[in-house]
Amino acid sequence: MINFAEQKLFKMKHLKQSAFLIASVMMLASCIDKNRKGTHEQSEKTESISKKYWPNGARLVISVSMQFETGGQPEGAESPFSGTPLPKGQPDLAAESWYRYGANEGIYRMLDLWKKYNIKVTSHVVGTAAEKYPEIARAIANGGHEIAAHGLAWDNQWNKNYTDELHFVKDGVDAVEKITGQKALGYNCNWLRRSPNTLKVLQELGFLYHIDDLSHDEPVITKVNGKNFVVIPYTLRNNDIVNIEGKHWSPDQFLTQLKFEFDRLYEEGASKRRMMSISFHDRIGGTPAMVHAMEEFIRYTKERQGVVFMRKDDIAKMVMNDPATPVDNSEEKYNN
Amino acid sequence: MINFAEQKLFKMKHLKQSAFLIASVMMLASCIDKNRKGTHEQSEKTESISKKYWPNGARLVISVSMQFETGGQPEGAESPFSGTPLPKGQPDLAAESWYRYGANEGIYRMLDLWKKYNIKVTSHVVGTAAEKYPEIARAIANGGHEIAAHGLAWDNQWNKNYTDELHFVKDGVDAVEKITGQKALGYNCNWLRRSPNTLKVLQELGFLYHIDDLSHDEPVITKVNGKNFVVIPYTLRNNDIVNIEGKHWSPDQFLTQLKFEFDRLYEEGASKRRMMSISFHDRIGGTPAMVHAMEEFIRYTKERQGVVFMRKDDIAKMVMNDPATPVDNSEEKYNN
Amino acid sequence: MINFAEQKLFKMKHLKQSAFLIASVMMLASCIDKNRKGTHEQSEKTESISKKYWPNGARLVISVSMQFETGGQPEGAESPFSGTPLPKGQPDLAAESWYRYGANEGIYRMLDLWKKYNIKVTSHVVGTAAEKYPEIARAIANGGHEIAAHGLAWDNQWNKNYTDELHFVKDGVDAVEKITGQKALGYNCNWLRRSPNTLKVLQELGFLYHIDDLSHDEPVITKVNGKNFVVIPYTLRNNDIVNIEGKHWSPDQFLTQLKFEFDRLYEEGASKRRMMSISFHDRIGGTPAMVHAMEEFIRYTKERQGVVFMRKDDIAKMVMNDPATPVDNSEEKYNN
Amino acid sequence: MINFAEQKLFKMKHLKQSAFLIASVMMLASCIDKNRKGTHEQSEKTESISKKYWPNGARLVISVSMQFETGGQPEGAESPFSGTPLPKGQPDLAAESWYRYGANEGIYRMLDLWKKYNIKVTSHVVGTAAEKYPEIARAIANGGHEIAAHGLAWDNQWNKNYTDELHFVKDGVDAVEKITGQKALGYNCNWLRRSPNTLKVLQELGFLYHIDDLSHDEPVITKVNGKNFVVIPYTLRNNDIVNIEGKHWSPDQFLTQLKFEFDRLYEEGASKRRMMSISFHDRIGGTPAMVHAMEEFIRYTKERQGVVFMRKDDIAKMVMNDPATPVDNSEEKYNN
Repeated sequence: MINFAEQKLFKMKHLKQSAFLIASVMMLASCIDKNRKGTHEQSEKTESISKKYWPNGARLVISVSMQFETGGQPEGAESPFSGTPLPKGQPDLAAESWYRYGANEGIYRMLDLWKKYNIKVTSHVVGTAAEKYPEIARAIANGGHEIAAHGLAWDNQWNKNYTDELHFVKDGVDAVEKITGQKALGYNCNWLRRSPNTLKVLQELGFLYHIDDLSHDEPVITKVNGKNFVVIPYTLRNNDIVNIEGKHWSPDQFLTQLKFEFDRLYEEGASKRRMMSISFHDRIGGTPAMVHAMEEFIRYTKERQGVVFMRKDDIAKMVMNDPATPVDNSEEKYNN
Repeated sequence: MINFAEQKLFKMKHLKQSAFLIASVMMLASCIDKNRKGTHEQSEKTESISKKYWPNGARLVISVSMQFETGGQPEGAESPFSGTPLPKGQPDLAAESWYRYGANEGIYRMLDLWKKYNIKVTSHVVGTAAEKYPEIARAIANGGHEIAAHGLAWDNQWNKNYTDELHFVKDGVDAVEKITGQKALGYNCNWLRRSPNTLKVLQELGFLYHIDDLSHDEPVITKVNGKNFVVIPYTLRNNDIVNIEGKHWSPDQFLTQLKFEFDRLYEEGASKRRMMSISFHDRIGGTPAMVHAMEEFIRYTKERQGVVFMRKDDIAKMVMNDPATPVDNSEEKYNN
Repeated sequence: MINFAEQKLFKMKHLKQSAFLIASVMMLASCIDKNRKGTHEQSEKTESISKKYWPNGARLVISVSMQFETGGQPEGAESPFSGTPLPKGQPDLAAESWYRYGANEGIYRMLDLWKKYNIKVTSHVVGTAAEKYPEIARAIANGGHEIAAHGLAWDNQWNKNYTDELHFVKDGVDAVEKITGQKALGYNCNWLRRSPNTLKVLQELGFLYHIDDLSHDEPVITKVNGKNFVVIPYTLRNNDIVNIEGKHWSPDQFLTQLKFEFDRLYEEGASKRRMMSISFHDRIGGTPAMVHAMEEFIRYTKERQGVVFMRKDDIAKMVMNDPATPVDNSEEKYNN
Repeated sequence: MINFAEQKLFKMKHLKQSAFLIASVMMLASCIDKNRKGTHEQSEKTESISKKYWPNGARLVISVSMQFETGGQPEGAESPFSGTPLPKGQPDLAAESWYRYGANEGIYRMLDLWKKYNIKVTSHVVGTAAEKYPEIARAIANGGHEIAAHGLAWDNQWNKNYTDELHFVKDGVDAVEKITGQKALGYNCNWLRRSPNTLKVLQELGFLYHIDDLSHDEPVITKVNGKNFVVIPYTLRNNDIVNIEGKHWSPDQFLTQLKFEFDRLYEEGASKRRMMSISFHDRIGGTPAMVHAMEEFIRYTKERQGVVFMRKDDIAKMVMNDPATPVDNSEEKYNN
C-alpha cells in the first residue's frame, strides 16, 4: 500500500531526481523497519500510528543540521574569547585553536555517530570552510549526508543587494560542489538572517528549500514568484550554539530538552505531520559530552516506533508538491 | 454545606454576574471532584484539607496566565535576535518568524493541553494581536478561557497621562471584545509596569482586578477611590519569559520550579488561603518542551486532592467581597 | 564531661552573657541529641565524631543568615526590573511589589520553617527595614533568632570616613534595638563591602564579630587594636541572592549545591573544625520553592548525626577565646 | 611485554630524565593495576582495551590541572565582585578574602583529594603566588605533583615583545624553582592567550610542552624551529573557572559534564589515543561542593578499567618522540 505522499513523489517536476527519491523512500522504509524491532510499547501503540502525515507509517521525522564552518570564520569571530577581543591584527591563537577543534575532532566524531546509527544528516557547509578542509567536506558527502549551502564565507547577507547576494550564494555553492560533487538544494543564512530578496535569489539558483524560519513544527510551502518553495523549520530550541554557547546550558540540559521536545512532538505526530529539528555545529556539538548527549537521545528515540531521521533535501522533495503541506505566505510582500 | 466564600458570592454587587458565579462554583466543585479520584494519599490527607480558605474544600488554587501577544510586537521587540538589532527599517525576518510560532503553533498547542485536562486559563490578549489573528482570539474564547486585557498594543503605559492611558486600555478592550464577545475584567501591563494612575483607570473602565503585583501568594483587596479592587498575584518565579528567555533555564528546570513551588504552597494551603500563579507566553510556553513540562506538572498536581485550576476573573469574583480576603493598601497614596 | 570550648565560655569577659551562653550550650546539646535518633549510619560513624572541634560532639555547625532588608531599599534598588530602570522619580510599582513580598510572605514563611525544625538563625536587619516593618523585626526576635546589624540603611559604607561609618552602624543598631530589645553583636555590610576602618568601628561599638569574609570554612580570630575580633565566614556559594538572582540558578540547583557542600564539609568535620554558612534574603530565599529546597536540605542533614544549626553570636562566643581557633591577621595593616 | 610507547621513552634525547621516565611508567603501571580491581565489567571489556595508544594497556588518560594563582592577582582581578569595581586604590576587602580562600582552604582540600586517590596532577603556579605562599607551593611539590609554569605574575603576555616575554616566563620559573626545587617543563598562559612568539620562547627556555591549545583530544607534536614541541590539550569544557564563574553552572552540572565527557572519550579510547583534560583553580575548584563533585567523578572513573590520571610532564615525555603522536603544524608561520 502506497500512501498519498509517496504517490506525490512520483509526480514531482524534477524527474531527474526520481531515482534519488525512490532511494529516499527506500531509506525511510528501512529506517522505520529498524525502529519496529523490540520496542516494549509496540502493541499498544501500533494502531495510533498515522499513515497519513509521512510516508510508510512514519510518525515523527527528525532532521539534524550539522554546520561545518570552521576555517571560514573571520578574525574575531564569536568564541569563548571574543567577549574580550584582542587588538585588530593580533592573532587570537587560543580562539583559533578552539575553532580548529571542529575540524580536528568535531565533524569526525559526529560522522562516527551518524554512521553507527545509520543516520543521514544535512550539513550546512560554508564555502571557505570546505576550501580550507576539503577532505572534511568530502568525508561528509561520502558518508551519504546532504551537502547544503551556508554562504561563501561566514558573513552577513541581509545587507547585500540582489546581485551581490546572488553571487555570494552561488560562489559558495560552486566552491563546495567542486570539492564534494554535490550541488546544494537547501540554504541556511549566517545567524538565520535573510534579506527580503533571499528566497528569490535561492529560487533563481535552483534551490528547493531554506531553513531560516522558526514559525512551524513542520515543513510548509511558501510561494516565491508564484512557485512553490519549501520552508523546512529550523530551531533555536534544539540548537547547540544557542543553548551551549549562548544560554550556557550544560550538555545534560540539552539532552533533557531534546527528550521533552521529542515526547511532545511524538505525541502530536499521531494526529498531524510533525517534524523535529536539531542543530549541531562542528566545534560545539562535536565535543565528547555533546555527542554523548546526542547518542543518548538517539537511543531514547529508538524506544518508540515510527521515528525517522531524514536529510532536509529528502523532506523537501517529499512535501514540495504534496497538497497536504500547509502553505504559509506570511512574507508574500517580499516574494513576488 | 456552603462555606463563607460561596455565601459571599451571592451577596456580590455585580448581580448580573451571579449566573456566571454559580457556574464558576459548579466548575470548581466539578474540578475538585475529579481531583478526588484515585490519589494514593487520599485517606491520610482528607482531614487536613481546609474548608475555610477556598470554596468546596479546595486547598490550593492554581491560575495560569496565557499571554497572546504575537502579531502585536513592535519592530525590534525582544527576541533571541534583538540583542544584535538590525538597522531601523530592515525587516528581521528570522525574529518575525520566531514570533509567528506563537500564532501558528504555540497557542493551539496550549489550548489542546488545557482542553485535555479541562483547565480554564486567563488569556491576556494584546489588542493588535487579536486584530492580526482574530481566529486565535476566538479559539481562546470558545475554549472557555477568560479573555483579559493586555493593552491595545505592546507598549509602555507607565509613561502615559491619565487620559492617554485610559484610551490605551479601553481601545484594547474594545478591539478584543469586538472579536471575541468577551469584555475584559482583568488587566496585565506590559512588563508589569503600571503608572500611578493605572488602578484608577481600570476601575473607571469597570475592571475587577489587575495582576501586576508580586507581593503576595494569595489575592488581596486594595482600595481604589474607596472601593474594593482585587489584586490577583502574578509571578516572575513561574513565568516562562523570565525563566526561559531571561534566565536561560531549560524546560526541566522550569518543571522542577513548578513542583517545588507547588509542594510548599500545597502544604501551606492547609492553614491559609494560597494561590499559585503560572505564566505562559504564546511563542515561549507554547513550544513542545514547555507544554510537555506543563503536562508533567499538571499530572503532578493530580496526585494531591483539592487542587483547582481557575480563571482569574472567577477568583476575583470569589474574593472581592469576602471579608477573609486580606486588604493591602500599600499604594494608597496613588489610589485616592 | 565538659570540653575545652565550653570551659572557655565561662571565662569570657562578657560575663553578663553567661546565662545566655549556658542556654546556648544546652541548645547545642539538645540539637545534637535530636540528630542522634534513627540515623542508619549511626554505629559506623560514632567513633569518627570528634569531641575536639565543637562542643558536645558536634561534627559540623551550620549557620543560616536571614537578611531582612525589604522596606529599606533605595529607589532603583536591584530587582528583576532594575536592569531597565525607570526615569528618576517615576515609581517602579512592580519592583516595589517584588520587594514587599519579603515582608508579606518571605520572612514569615522562613520563620515557620525555622520553628518547625527548631533552628535559630542570625537575622541581619537593616535599620530602616525594621522601622518600616517593626512587627516583623519583633517576630524574628521573638522566635529566638539573633538580631544582627546590617547598617542603618541599604547603603555603601566602604566610602565613608571613620566618624560617618561609626554613626551609620550605630544608628542602625540603635534603631533595631529600640524595636526588638536586642543589641546586635555581629555585622554584615551591604554587599560585604567594608572600609579599611570597619572592624575598628565595630570593635569600638562593642561588636564581637563580622561576617564579610569569604576566606575560611570555619571561624577565625583577627586582631583589632590588639584585641580578639571574630570573623564568622560568610558565603557566596550558598547564597540565595548570588545564585538565584545573580547566577540564575533554579532552586533545585541551589538544593544540590547545599547537599554537595554539606557532604564534603561533614566529611572534613571528622578531622577539623568546619562550619557551613547559608544565606537567605527575605524576598528571594522566602519564596515557596526556596523554602521547599531549604526544608529538603534540613531533612538531608538529619540523616547524619552531629549536625548543629547555630546562631552566629553563639558561635562567636564559643570561639572567641578558644586557643584552638585559628588566627588570621591578613588585614593587620588596617586593624592596628 | 613493552609496547612502542615505552620503547620510545628510552630513546628520548633528554636522557637525564630517563630515571624519571621509568618511574613514571611504573606509576602508570601501578595506577592501572589499581583500576583493575573489582570492576564488574572487567571480563567483557578486557579484550577491547587497546595496547597501542598508551603504555601498559591504559585506555584513557585523564590529566588534571590545578592552578595556584591566589596572592598573585592584581588589584581588581576578576572575582564575583569585579563587575562593580571599587575606585582605584580602594581595597576590595571582600574580593581579597574570596581569593585568600584558595590559599587557606582550596589548595589543601584538593591536595587531600589527590592524595586519597593517589592522583598526581599538574599545578600551574604563578610566580608571585608562590612567593606569597611558599609553604603552599612546597606542599604541592611535596605531594608528588608537577610544578608547571603560569607566568611570573597574573598578567598578559600576548602583548609583550620576545625579550620581555622571555624574561616574564623565566622569572616566574626561577621564582618557583627557588621555592619548590622543581623546574617547570610545561606552560600555561594567562587566559590561554599566547603571543606568536610564545612557543619559541618556551623552547629556548627548555620547556617540553604548553597547554594553551583547544584543538585536540590528545597530545600532538608541533614543530618549533624544526624541533618537536608537545601540545597537551587544555580544556574550557571541563574547566572550573569557565563553567562555574563564567557560565554560572552549579557543581552538579560540572559533575555531569565530566561524566558525559568521560563516557564518550572512554569509548573512543578503544580505537585511538584519547586524553581528557580537567582544570581546577584554587579558589573555585577548591570549594567543598566542587571537591565533592570531583570525588564523585573519580569514583565514577574507577568503574572502568584502564583509566589513568597523569601529570602533563609525564605525558609530554611519553609522546614527544613517539611516531604515533599526530603532528599539527597549524601555526607553523609563527614557529619558524
